[in-house]
Amino acid sequence: MKNGTIEKLIALGAATIHEAQGAKGALDSGIKPIDPSSRLAGPAVTVDIRPADNLMLHYALTKVCPGDVLVVDAKGFIEAGPWGDVMTHAAMKLGVAGLVINGAVRDASQIVEMGFPVFCRGLSIKGTAKNQPGKVNVPICIGDVLINHGDYVVGDRDGVVIVPTNEVEATLNSAAAREEKEAAFRRELDQGRTTVELLGLAETLKRLGLD
Amino acid sequence: MKNGTIEKLIALGAATIHEAQGAKGALDSGIKPIDPSSRLAGPAVTVDIRPADNLMLHYALTKVCPGDVLVVDAKGFIEAGPWGDVMTHAAMKLGVAGLVINGAVRDASQIVEMGFPVFCRGLSIKGTAKNQPGKVNVPICIGDVLINHGDYVVGDRDGVVIVPTNEVEATLNSAAAREEKEAAFRRELDQGRTTVELLGLAETLKRLGLD
Amino acid sequence: MKNGTIEKLIALGAATIHEAQGAKGALDSGIKPIDPSSRLAGPAVTVDIRPADNLMLHYALTKVCPGDVLVVDAKGFIEAGPWGDVMTHAAMKLGVAGLVINGAVRDASQIVEMGFPVFCRGLSIKGTAKNQPGKVNVPICIGDVLINHGDYVVGDRDGVVIVPTNEVEATLNSAAAREEKEAAFRRELDQGRTTVELLGLAETLKRLGLD
Amino acid sequence: MKNGTIEKLIALGAATIHEAQGAKGALDSGIKPIDPSSRLAGPAVTVDIRPADNLMLHYALTKVCPGDVLVVDAKGFIEAGPWGDVMTHAAMKLGVAGLVINGAVRDASQIVEMGFPVFCRGLSIKGTAKNQPGKVNVPICIGDVLINHGDYVVGDRDGVVIVPTNEVEATLNSAAAREEKEAAFRRELDQGRTTVELLGLAETLKRLGLD
Amino acid sequence: MKNGTIEKLIALGAATIHEAQGAKGALDSGIKPIDPSSRLAGPAVTVDIRPADNLMLHYALTKVCPGDVLVVDAKGFIEAGPWGDVMTHAAMKLGVAGLVINGAVRDASQIVEMGFPVFCRGLSIKGTAKNQPGKVNVPICIGDVLINHGDYVVGDRDGVVIVPTNEVEATLNSAAAREEKEAAFRRELDQGRTTVELLGLAETLKRLGLD
Amino acid sequence: MKNGTIEKLIALGAATIHEAQGAKGALDSGIKPIDPSSRLAGPAVTVDIRPADNLMLHYALTKVCPGDVLVVDAKGFIEAGPWGDVMTHAAMKLGVAGLVINGAVRDASQIVEMGFPVFCRGLSIKGTAKNQPGKVNVPICIGDVLINHGDYVVGDRDGVVIVPTNEVEATLNSAAAREEKEAAFRRELDQGRTTVELLGLAETLKRLGLD
Repeated sequence: MKNGTIEKLIALGAATIHEAQGAKGALDSGIKPIDPSSRLAGPAVTVDIRPADNLMLHYALTKVCPGDVLVVDAKGFIEAGPWGDVMTHAAMKLGVAGLVINGAVRDASQIVEMGFPVFCRGLSIKGTAKNQPGKVNVPICIGDVLINHGDYVVGDRDGVVIVPTNEVEATLNSAAAREEKEAAFRRELDQGRTTVELLGLAETLKRLGLD
Repeated sequence: MKNGTIEKLIALGAATIHEAQGAKGALDSGIKPIDPSSRLAGPAVTVDIRPADNLMLHYALTKVCPGDVLVVDAKGFIEAGPWGDVMTHAAMKLGVAGLVINGAVRDASQIVEMGFPVFCRGLSIKGTAKNQPGKVNVPICIGDVLINHGDYVVGDRDGVVIVPTNEVEATLNSAAAREEKEAAFRRELDQGRTTVELLGLAETLKRLGLD
Repeated sequence: MKNGTIEKLIALGAATIHEAQGAKGALDSGIKPIDPSSRLAGPAVTVDIRPADNLMLHYALTKVCPGDVLVVDAKGFIEAGPWGDVMTHAAMKLGVAGLVINGAVRDASQIVEMGFPVFCRGLSIKGTAKNQPGKVNVPICIGDVLINHGDYVVGDRDGVVIVPTNEVEATLNSAAAREEKEAAFRRELDQGRTTVELLGLAETLKRLGLD
Repeated sequence: MKNGTIEKLIALGAATIHEAQGAKGALDSGIKPIDPSSRLAGPAVTVDIRPADNLMLHYALTKVCPGDVLVVDAKGFIEAGPWGDVMTHAAMKLGVAGLVINGAVRDASQIVEMGFPVFCRGLSIKGTAKNQPGKVNVPICIGDVLINHGDYVVGDRDGVVIVPTNEVEATLNSAAAREEKEAAFRRELDQGRTTVELLGLAETLKRLGLD
Repeated sequence: MKNGTIEKLIALGAATIHEAQGAKGALDSGIKPIDPSSRLAGPAVTVDIRPADNLMLHYALTKVCPGDVLVVDAKGFIEAGPWGDVMTHAAMKLGVAGLVINGAVRDASQIVEMGFPVFCRGLSIKGTAKNQPGKVNVPICIGDVLINHGDYVVGDRDGVVIVPTNEVEATLNSAAAREEKEAAFRRELDQGRTTVELLGLAETLKRLGLD
Repeated sequence: MKNGTIEKLIALGAATIHEAQGAKGALDSGIKPIDPSSRLAGPAVTVDIRPADNLMLHYALTKVCPGDVLVVDAKGFIEAGPWGDVMTHAAMKLGVAGLVINGAVRDASQIVEMGFPVFCRGLSIKGTAKNQPGKVNVPICIGDVLINHGDYVVGDRDGVVIVPTNEVEATLNSAAAREEKEAAFRRELDQGRTTVELLGLAETLKRLGLD
């Protein structure tokens, strides 16, 4: 990946990236950062676990590289937190960039203090067992989105989007063009023009009998 | 509307206004500000849209006056955000006071930074189409509340309440009386009296066999 | 109860206490503090109320001692707030340590400003009636947890856990031992060891064909 | 209303009526018949009640005419059943055609045996109080649909739709035309034609690059 | 227990029993029979299990007597079915009267064919593990209801209610009186009287300004 | 595929197939047949559509072979029914075996009468537009399950499971072995043995201190 890719993905943000790659790859709206100011981007290490067992997360930590994002399917179960402060400590030591989990975590206050970006469905004080099977770096599904090992993950307050590795470059270009267009758009709005004019919606409104 | 009405509505807050107008007009508890410190009041421009299409929001922006609040029924759908930072920019330029939407928005961080009050059901990074019909300034329903063009909207951290235009004056008076009573109440509590005494609940408790 | 018990429970936090007492007593993940920085511990005054009636909360305030935590079953109903700023004022005057309610509250901004810890399912601007029966200091159930008068309540950003009075001492000891172990654990992680090594998970992973 | 209107509305069914009147008036998908074979049509007597109080339903029964359908907003609360077998008995004696309730009912087995069409969100064994205020024959909102006294209600296994009185005639005509078209459509399908041909979708598919 | 108690509880049904014992003991509305015609009554064998593990159900089957009802807290988890056709076979062989589970089951078609009453939150094809701890015949909580070993369980299409052993006799008497009163009530309705007259609601309506 | 595969999959049922292929491939418990007696098996034609647009379903019908099962991701949206009686008519004419949809359908009564197996999340009377893009026979995700074109789908009252084509043979063999074992198991239960004995759970129970 080129220099600056992570920074650019973070600066553009999840909503812009989603639109720029053709309105696809958005995780559902229930997965959000525990700290609203979190911003995250990086390649995914995918992890498939059972609802209340974190054995595979320990295993996954033996497979990560600096900058990786753990993307975990805990089956949407929010009444147990397979990730807490000790695992955050271990992950940060290894340079992991953040966690996205289809499930819950615990020790939220400490995780926020440590500055580790976590995107999840909720918080639970319940721990988990450590003995059930799972898989690392296999394709996983969260909501209607397929996530492969190495896909790029971009998350912020609005939510999380997945970008396939071979589409990152094109998506960044398309997003940059969008940003420029939006900046021009804002200048036009400041001049007193309307979004109806700028987006050319007058025809559609007329067809619907509105003016 | 008299001078100071908006300020008074904001200062009294949604819970007090709701009680003062006879316990009616409260939107359901799922609609909340994205910034907990937001406080909003103003007359409603009502907008009826399809779940994932924002054409009518662009149209509505051609109909607003400074101080208006956009009140939008997006049918409770939270997997698309028909409102984002560019529309916020356009709305603020026009003097719109805020947005209440039965649905989701995107670009939450930017909207909070811009200081524009938004009350919604969630956040979604997914954009929308711009081609489906809808209506502006017709009666709309959110939950069990009917909202007419011009009704007053009052929102804060606790939630949102709707006040019919011709009841605003009476509601403000009733609310002011409530506030005075509550202030006296607090002074009595500080003197060591109980809420059971102050509210005259002893009789009811006795009837239920409690003392 | 010994000196310092409350402080220790607060310092250890809900997730650690839950684990230390044998993974039991956790309220479900839907009950959370309205201020994420709230931390609460104390003995429970239990209150059983109807979904939209707060008579029993007024009655309960005549039965509290300083340091008590009100633990209220409002049946999970979140479309009314039986607790607000005036009751918070009354409760603080009486030295009540905080509120846990299986339901909603109103006046969230004022409650946060007053610094009173409240754990609930949501916020609602709707007030309640004051005439229905209920009970104080009877056993109540929230989720799958039975709560008796006098049980200890511990709550923080992650959630709430209940500790039976006669298990507090043992739980504190067990939790302290866990904390020490975790501290050592972090030192080992900083030395470059893995959680798989430290938790002895290699055998389990091998059995599952993972290495 | 002309002779045969009720029978025609029942025969056409909720989905066809909804489409025929321009895709509006559908109650949300959570309101369904307790007996899947129920089919209902008639003018609405609207009733606005509190979540767990059925006083207004008793009052409404003093205002009904034979053929009326009770349409009740119980605020979506499903943990109490304000309607049961005795009220069904009373309603049938008065010629009431059926009940649509934004809430729950009890005594489902007896109601099904008695053959009284009930559309609701769920079943609850809990009874209600009989002392809270409400209103009869005022406009009410269920989901995003406004329902006025006298509007026509049509319900079957698929759900419920509301038709304003002055649109019934036009809607019936439009629906009849749709039915004829669909019958012709089926004959064409039986001849081996595709829905893409019959609906003229080839152009749209081509534009999207599909063939 | 006296002869005929079970039959009487079944004949009266859950809604009547709930009302007769003072409007308490109702499980929440999400727990329903998989066969709407199921009717069940008997003393509870309580079982506390983990969300996706049925070891304790096998254990519980070694503790049952003919006529017992298994009442299981599986923590509301519906994405696994800890009970299926083989366990139904085993339970029927032992004379178990039925199952109430705060969770899901599998093999619904076979269970219905076998005529075994099951009340649950859903169906799941996923099996469970058989190695986690739990408890039999301890107090358990489902929703806000505390259930002790030996409490009576009554279930039908409307839902499930729990009756403490020492209240069964009084509840049956009270329920019988209610039934007689309701029968008289129906005869009065058939004579043309209204529920407002029969329940003496005219005064309350008058106070609310309704007539 | 060998002769008799479909019949065997149907006879074994979703829960047994799920277990036999190693506890994977189960769609979540919210997707159920509209007719509880439906039983379905066949290879998947996958369809990716927008929440309220059925253009791609018309397109998919031009790609099906007799025996295929349409498996549609409508993004879980249940407030529109992209499939109804006319499409059922068209599909049956083409020999389609059934439909599984992550969304809702309409015209349920007619579909049940026509005997066409449909598995969905709900029923909605609302129709859809016919102009948005999508894809046919691409990998789709429903819940945490990845579904490829040609994978086998097995559905019954309990739910739906997906079997990759190259695992069908092994799964059938494993399932047959399970069925034989279960039959033997039932005979043993009839002889008075317990499931604890038959499953060898005594050791586990002893380790947990239960006997």
